[in-house]
Amino acid sequence: MITRRSFVGGLAAASVARALRVRGASLDVPRVDPRALRERLDALSVFGRPPDGVFADGVSRVAYSDADVAGRKYVIRLMTAAHLEPRVDPAGNIFGTRAGTDPALPPILFGSHIDSVPSGGNFDGDLGSLSALGAMEALAAAGVRTRHPLEMVVWAHEEGVAFGRALACSRIVAGDFKPADLDEVWNGMRRADAIRKIGGNPDRILDAQRMKGSIHCYIELHIEQGGNLEKAAVPIGIVEGIVAIDKYDVTVTGFANHAGTTPMAERQDALLAAAQLTVAVREVVTSEPGRQVGTVGHLEILPNAPNVIPGVARLTIEIRDLSPEKLRRLGDAIRARARDIATTTRTTIELKAASLAPPAAASPDVQRAIERAAASLALQTMRLPSGAGHDAQMMAQIAPMGMIFVPSVGGISHSPKELTRWEDCAHGADVLLRTVLEMDRSG
Amino acid sequence: MITRRSFVGGLAAASVARALRVRGASLDVPRVDPRALRERLDALSVFGRPPDGVFADGVSRVAYSDADVAGRKYVIRLMTAAHLEPRVDPAGNIFGTRAGTDPALPPILFGSHIDSVPSGGNFDGDLGSLSALGAMEALAAAGVRTRHPLEMVVWAHEEGVAFGRALACSRIVAGDFKPADLDEVWNGMRRADAIRKIGGNPDRILDAQRMKGSIHCYIELHIEQGGNLEKAAVPIGIVEGIVAIDKYDVTVTGFANHAGTTPMAERQDALLAAAQLTVAVREVVTSEPGRQVGTVGHLEILPNAPNVIPGVARLTIEIRDLSPEKLRRLGDAIRARARDIATTTRTTIELKAASLAPPAAASPDVQRAIERAAASLALQTMRLPSGAGHDAQMMAQIAPMGMIFVPSVGGISHSPKELTRWEDCAHGADVLLRTVLEMDRSG
Repeated sequence: MITRRSFVGGLAAASVARALRVRGASLDVPRVDPRALRERLDALSVFGRPPDGVFADGVSRVAYSDADVAGRKYVIRLMTAAHLEPRVDPAGNIFGTRAGTDPALPPILFGSHIDSVPSGGNFDGDLGSLSALGAMEALAAAGVRTRHPLEMVVWAHEEGVAFGRALACSRIVAGDFKPADLDEVWNGMRRADAIRKIGGNPDRILDAQRMKGSIHCYIELHIEQGGNLEKAAVPIGIVEGIVAIDKYDVTVTGFANHAGTTPMAERQDALLAAAQLTVAVREVVTSEPGRQVGTVGHLEILPNAPNVIPGVARLTIEIRDLSPEKLRRLGDAIRARARDIATTTRTTIELKAASLAPPAAASPDVQRAIERAAASLALQTMRLPSGAGHDAQMMAQIAPMGMIFVPSVGGISHSPKELTRWEDCAHGADVLLRTVLEMDRSG
Repeated sequence: MITRRSFVGGLAAASVARALRVRGASLDVPRVDPRALRERLDALSVFGRPPDGVFADGVSRVAYSDADVAGRKYVIRLMTAAHLEPRVDPAGNIFGTRAGTDPALPPILFGSHIDSVPSGGNFDGDLGSLSALGAMEALAAAGVRTRHPLEMVVWAHEEGVAFGRALACSRIVAGDFKPADLDEVWNGMRRADAIRKIGGNPDRILDAQRMKGSIHCYIELHIEQGGNLEKAAVPIGIVEGIVAIDKYDVTVTGFANHAGTTPMAERQDALLAAAQLTVAVREVVTSEPGRQVGTVGHLEILPNAPNVIPGVARLTIEIRDLSPEKLRRLGDAIRARARDIATTTRTTIELKAASLAPPAAASPDVQRAIERAAASLALQTMRLPSGAGHDAQMMAQIAPMGMIFVPSVGGISHSPKELTRWEDCAHGADVLLRTVLEMDRSG
């Protein structure tokens, strides 16, 4: 389905390499094969596709699910075929390396993830992962040798559906992990066993850590997931930074009782309290100007029967902003509202707070490299923050980080309707490849 | 575990029968064995008990579950041992008959159900079912022959958890059923297959119907499930009527999108709309005086992930009152609120209404019979409505109906904490037995 010649068009590999050396990033540098990229996005989408579904029906490839394991195997096969000698680190992340000319230099790392939210789309993570592979193949086909070793990565468990903690496996690489986390249980599965299921090794989990300074830079191509690029009709976004995320796991405890025999005045309705809190989260988040967002995305109630007053409600609150100070302020206001709601509904409301991710600034050097890469392809760019969390956020703790965004149609993502046009996918992959080459020249 | 002699104490069966014939309901009539009743409530609670749980941990014996099937088998065994020749009607209800002296007379029917809500209690339904059996045994042991045939019943699928329709199988007997209902699907199971699973015969479902006038009367013993009897310290409640229930199946459709990248102003959050509707239901229901109640007891959202704005929410609204006119008025007000909420949240809200049960008046004759039965045992009574639905509601459509209530500690039911004291259970069973004998003398 992919031929090596297709990467370089009519040019011989050697002449491409010479052109590179002589003129730097030019129109002659290798390009990522857009047809192969599209075919692989389609092929990967099969793992976790709804029964009888097609590509446009989205995917449920939650980390550690059987679909995730199958999707990872598919990518590993492609990496093996590309001579990248894929290895799975103890945390379950997949790496593939291509040697550089100077073994003393730290590697340039680039990639993304392939796990999804339930009923998610086919571009989130997949595009960055398969473009990284495409970039590696393009360089190999063109015979281009970089100074730095190149390392591509497919991060495990980015979405944070399993075990409720996002960016979990890049987090381990960044050193933000405690062994007790291995004992967490999700869907009846211990985290240690989940890591084993995808080929990781929980007994050596700390070996997954990479030291600060050991990576030249980290570059990630990703769909924007918002509507800014599409609205501005700009094909390439240069990420300035990634917002911080605070998450609250909330348990509302009321009292389950008969829906017919319990007077309204005597109820301790956990869902009523949860509903009031859901409304309050929106009120608090929109009470001041700014781009902060707040979401109740998960809610379950017990016993969840039409004729029983709910006794327990469990929900999550997520708030996001570039300013941790603002997140603290909003969190305090939500807590205060929860206290009032608990009093009036005669329930107890427990909020367990976790900072899912600190804000992360993108490196000015990498931002400028992306700008030059896009300019060399005559692609317009705009700078913007990322409202979504990304593995790049974790990598920012140990290396200069940069992110390339491509437009999401309608700003839709985490949905089967998620769509990035094939042309924009191809542009993003080429900008990734050229940014790698730009960064190879620095430092 | 139960000896026939224990029913009649020191009296010989023949002398009891004579006493009955001579003096009517007196202190000498047979009593239901309270120890056997308790042991059987305990034994039945095993089917659907939580793992490692005890009696006080409640039960999940949802209709058509494996636990329900096992519990039904247990009761059928007991009925067989009591020579009641149990038969399962095409709807899945279990009947057992004891002949009377006059075959021309219609039977006196009494019983309850043994299915439960998820995480329900051990008395709701079970007490009335096993007391009916105890009453049959007591009469047999005492050699008492009634004029009317006696028929005990264990109704199937009373709670309406499966297929979302309460009192489903007594409803079929009352003739309120359409064959299309057999095609409903719940938990991946067709209703026809569910009925087969418990020994019914969907192909002959209409044969389950009993004609108006073919039953002398229907009597049901049940826990109150509210706190009125306990607060008044009265052991026996005489039900005046059962409230009507209107139910709305609600689907809120918004748009699933990324919780980090979608600005607050652009969201179409199905959970936010569902939360506002949940709050509105309470506001509407408490906006006028009276004993009406309204509950959102079931809610599920999709995709239900912390980092995705919910795209769909499904919930149930149940409202109950003795006045169907008031239910209509409240329903209209809830609809109006739903329309407003849909507009402001940019979602669509569909309400599918179903009248789960019409109000049902208890027969004055049966009420008086219960009163005499309690008086013969020197037990105080009070009259009260039932806020809960019962199979008696369906039977009221084809026969004079009466219900006996016993106190629920703390008014708690549909909860593992549901409790009726053993002494009150025994009183209820004896009042049931004597009410049967009282009604045998009339008509």
